[in-house]
Amino acid sequence: MARERLVVVGADAAGMTAATNARRIRPEAELTIDAFDTGDYSSYAACGIPYFVGGLVDELDRLVARRPEEFRERQQISVHLAHEVTEIDPARGAVRVQPREGEARWEPYDHLMVAIGADPIRPPLPGLDADGVFGVHALDDGSAIRRWVDDTRPERAVVVGGGYVSLEMAEAFAMLGLETHLVEMAPQPMTTLDPDMSELVSEGLRDFGVQLHLGTRVEGFDVTGGRVRAVRTEAGPVEAGVVALGLGVRPNVALAEAAGIGIGPSGGIAVDDHQRTSVERIFSGGDCAEKWHRVSRQPVAIALGTHANKQGRVAGINIAGGDAAFPGVVGTAATKVCALEVARTGLTTADAEAAGFRPVGVVARASTRAGYYPGGGPITTKLVVDEPSGRLLGGQIVGREGAAKRIDVVAVAVWNEMTVGELLNLDLSYAPPYSPVWDPVLVAARKAVGTEG
Amino acid sequence: MARERLVVVGADAAGMTAATNARRIRPEAELTIDAFDTGDYSSYAACGIPYFVGGLVDELDRLVARRPEEFRERQQISVHLAHEVTEIDPARGAVRVQPREGEARWEPYDHLMVAIGADPIRPPLPGLDADGVFGVHALDDGSAIRRWVDDTRPERAVVVGGGYVSLEMAEAFAMLGLETHLVEMAPQPMTTLDPDMSELVSEGLRDFGVQLHLGTRVEGFDVTGGRVRAVRTEAGPVEAGVVALGLGVRPNVALAEAAGIGIGPSGGIAVDDHQRTSVERIFSGGDCAEKWHRVSRQPVAIALGTHANKQGRVAGINIAGGDAAFPGVVGTAATKVCALEVARTGLTTADAEAAGFRPVGVVARASTRAGYYPGGGPITTKLVVDEPSGRLLGGQIVGREGAAKRIDVVAVAVWNEMTVGELLNLDLSYAPPYSPVWDPVLVAARKAVGTEG
Repeated sequence: MARERLVVVGADAAGMTAATNARRIRPEAELTIDAFDTGDYSSYAACGIPYFVGGLVDELDRLVARRPEEFRERQQISVHLAHEVTEIDPARGAVRVQPREGEARWEPYDHLMVAIGADPIRPPLPGLDADGVFGVHALDDGSAIRRWVDDTRPERAVVVGGGYVSLEMAEAFAMLGLETHLVEMAPQPMTTLDPDMSELVSEGLRDFGVQLHLGTRVEGFDVTGGRVRAVRTEAGPVEAGVVALGLGVRPNVALAEAAGIGIGPSGGIAVDDHQRTSVERIFSGGDCAEKWHRVSRQPVAIALGTHANKQGRVAGINIAGGDAAFPGVVGTAATKVCALEVARTGLTTADAEAAGFRPVGVVARASTRAGYYPGGGPITTKLVVDEPSGRLLGGQIVGREGAAKRIDVVAVAVWNEMTVGELLNLDLSYAPPYSPVWDPVLVAARKAVGTEG
Repeated sequence: MARERLVVVGADAAGMTAATNARRIRPEAELTIDAFDTGDYSSYAACGIPYFVGGLVDELDRLVARRPEEFRERQQISVHLAHEVTEIDPARGAVRVQPREGEARWEPYDHLMVAIGADPIRPPLPGLDADGVFGVHALDDGSAIRRWVDDTRPERAVVVGGGYVSLEMAEAFAMLGLETHLVEMAPQPMTTLDPDMSELVSEGLRDFGVQLHLGTRVEGFDVTGGRVRAVRTEAGPVEAGVVALGLGVRPNVALAEAAGIGIGPSGGIAVDDHQRTSVERIFSGGDCAEKWHRVSRQPVAIALGTHANKQGRVAGINIAGGDAAFPGVVGTAATKVCALEVARTGLTTADAEAAGFRPVGVVARASTRAGYYPGGGPITTKLVVDEPSGRLLGGQIVGREGAAKRIDVVAVAVWNEMTVGELLNLDLSYAPPYSPVWDPVLVAARKAVGTEG
């Protein structure tokens, strides 16, 4: 067999996982692997940035999982940083690579993995480019924010947006001792939760000293001398010495689209369950690619490292001639917001209605540990249930230590299309340090079937 | 409809859950409910005793979930403590009740719930009844142990047995500052784990200062002046100022057997999935009753509050004319042993072989949190997999904080008869404070399918 070449565009989670999985199956004598990335890091943990800013992680370097030298030594994979792929030519089977310094060149491929992630949403607001306004996406954003805070010693921070990263950034700024404000257009933070559960998150933020400006549209930024002074909102200005933007991301698809690769209804690159795109020999995965949602039965664009790793694994195995399928997602996510653990899976009540179900929500309050065991705390569990069938469609949890990871039980139950009647009888672990006799998730299930006793 | 009467024998988890669930469906005008119990407490948490002895729980009273007055006031259920049921006469539909003081009497029933729990195993060893030798079963055992320790100030404690309660008692004694020894006949503590996982538990005990005497049979107790001085083993005496016996329990079936109620192969009262015994109008549940094991497809006698509550709920609903079924167990259990969290579900490798599977075990070491996030610790996950089919048969976890509750994912996967190939793609929650990008359970699954990358 002639030696083949895999080219990977984007050297982060999906791309490098594809590369390492392909390598596991085929040695370098059969398959050379080259990965190109516009940036200066390979395989880094963007989700760790808020913890670096807040001081929980002391060195930005710790967020880099693996360096190019390691890929070369351990897996004979060549990673080329500061190399932008500017064009894909499927007919030629080649990509055009532009190094940050030097001449562009064409690199041929037998298999191509497009894993170029998602881009932060940056609406065209006046003042967006002022000094002191930062995205929270690349590792360099983390070091830039921390340097700015160290150098300018701002008194007030404003976070724009109400998603996971925004809340984590609000916590980070508050931990640094800044007066922290959060401005969000929606009437609630975390729109991936039902409003009643999101309200618990708002309370947790306020208890931690974060001031919330909800239902408030940002109109721009007041800038003096090139430097941000306030976030301008429809309700008036909010003074700011530093601003973090967490307005979400959208799949980065321009390169693929220009090459004629099909884009799906969610806005991500369309892929089948083997991570094949519409164009032969081109695979995709990670934040730029769609995922199949097993409950709504729709493709979705969810940017999350767990999916990127799994899709990358599947792509790599298939590229190397193996056979693996990605079975989809159920929308599980978790975060820590100040003293609260927050997690969700499946469909919210609104999502479920939109998907044609007839959902009811059931909320149960319980404790994370046996009542007599020290250190327990409140936990609120909401289950979203299809009323006619009793099928579990989703769940949301907000509570103290030990709360968030319980969402995994709900996630596996949703995955297996269990009803709440089945859920309530699950044989979950019990010991006083970890749980009451009825686990909080089962308490909610019992309530859903109407037999709390 | 004429008013009926439910008599409950045993006023703990299964019995009182049956009572409250029956009450939820049928008011007192339709159904009177009387519960009889030999002891002095209703609905107490025996599993909390080690935490009371160790000083984590300050009042024994806190282990009592609900008192007779509360059952009377809230649910019109009469609980008669210090009333032993000595005979069941199914033909008459009555039980003979012997109050601790006063005359025995016959109490008629329309429905009978037998929930008399399990008895601690007490082998006929010389010296077993000496002062300073205690069981760990009833609430009074807890107060007796603590009083003995306070009064006699022993320097050394010996725990006999290596199950959950024994390990928790060893931790409790060590926390009180006693030199603590554990003597176990089997070559490992926790025979519900595979030996390699159990070895991690042994290490955790030794690190905490507990001295282990494994593979060592107890032959009796040295007693002077009525008081225990040492545990006599085949390897010599182990000095002891206080001894706790944790030799396991067996279903308490004598009362049922004498009444002609069928006993199953596991030694517990045989029940169908509606908790009906072989005798009409007599139900059973909890530690005295069998449970159906969904993986081995055999009845088992597992004494655990979670099952007692669920079987009690099912019995109560059916007694009141509703329709509920108990779908069985997968053998999930958890405990905290010194600094370690320990959990298991499904079949061990040996169990799986005995059940006719062809198991392989896969062990993966990972971290409870993202590598860069503070506070994470090691976690070892073992999956037991049927090699020909890839079906997940069980799992075991030993690790630091955040480890044990992860067994629930494995439990739900085992429950749904998932393969490890399906398991590895599960959409579990990820956030740096809770998990690496690949959850430790998924790392083990990936290893089981041979595609770690």
